[in-house]
Amino acid sequence: MYPKSLNNLISSFLKLPGVGKKTAERYAYAVVNKMKKEDIEKFIESLSNCKDSIKRCPVCGFLTEDDICEYCKDNTRDKSTILVVEEAKDVEAIERCERYFGMYHVLGGSISPINGIGPEELNIKSLFKRIDDENTKEIILATSATVEGEATALYIKRFLQDKNIIVSRIAYGMPVGSSLEFSDESTIMRALDGRKEYR
Amino acid sequence: MYPKSLNNLISSFLKLPGVGKKTAERYAYAVVNKMKKEDIEKFIESLSNCKDSIKRCPVCGFLTEDDICEYCKDNTRDKSTILVVEEAKDVEAIERCERYFGMYHVLGGSISPINGIGPEELNIKSLFKRIDDENTKEIILATSATVEGEATALYIKRFLQDKNIIVSRIAYGMPVGSSLEFSDESTIMRALDGRKEYR
Repeated sequence: MYPKSLNNLISSFLKLPGVGKKTAERYAYAVVNKMKKEDIEKFIESLSNCKDSIKRCPVCGFLTEDDICEYCKDNTRDKSTILVVEEAKDVEAIERCERYFGMYHVLGGSISPINGIGPEELNIKSLFKRIDDENTKEIILATSATVEGEATALYIKRFLQDKNIIVSRIAYGMPVGSSLEFSDESTIMRALDGRKEYR
Repeated sequence: MYPKSLNNLISSFLKLPGVGKKTAERYAYAVVNKMKKEDIEKFIESLSNCKDSIKRCPVCGFLTEDDICEYCKDNTRDKSTILVVEEAKDVEAIERCERYFGMYHVLGGSISPINGIGPEELNIKSLFKRIDDENTKEIILATSATVEGEATALYIKRFLQDKNIIVSRIAYGMPVGSSLEFSDESTIMRALDGRKEYR
């Protein structure tokens, strides 16, 4: 018996990841009940801007409103290294640790035959083209530690093995701050396999 | 380094209740990356409709797009009983159990001196007017079992004590399906105080 436009708003919120009926209702209700008119206007404007003006950077696949993205534009970055991630938000995660200053390449997902996603569905061809064009020295594979992420990393590694290029994979092991007790078997296995001499 | 319109969208999602930076990013990213254009358009439309056309029912305070809300319009409902709740979504919770067929009154909050909310800030005056006008026989107080909810219930009860009207409060006790072991002291206390002879 909610008004129709409120029900429509609930349906829209339901489309967001991890949002169920109760949360969607709570959000819609907050919009109607607590949000200022100008905040709703801003919300509408930002949705509409995102819809119309955000596209993928033709070089690396990151999100941008311009011809190429901020990272590809930035001449202070080290052009000889490309870090490969699955999604644009992975780029932000890497940036947050302020340790990496090279280039990025966003695949837009990972190889997953079950979901019908092969290498052709991903932004991989442009990566290989980039490597040829840009005189890349190292490719850092930072796809997830899942079956799909591993398959994707393996695919790229195999493709590049005859080229004169370093292909590395980021380290997997115990997350900082966690204890063995609460870690799953796969993580502990990776931590053991990846052990280094302790100096 | 996200495009500006994506950052604006993240800020808008941050205004929703219980949404922090990571969740807002995830939502905004899903809008840009996974949502179809027509779904974003629907989202924009429903936000804009909610902003412009939803208002409070002048009789009961529930949300409506018309002159009065669906519940007040409905002639099959029992006009002699009014169930008083804090928020419009409480009405939906009561409706979901399909046990109550009377009228509603939405206060729009609860008395909370710390937050500067007194009886005047709530939709209470119109409740008292309704009782006089509508020949109400029973008022069911269904405000929350919090300090504020109790204060609000008490305030309304006191105001009505000289009138020829039944004022009841919904029962508090053990939630169905839970066990004593996992219940908090206040709930157990209420369950003990509210005990009934077992026939």
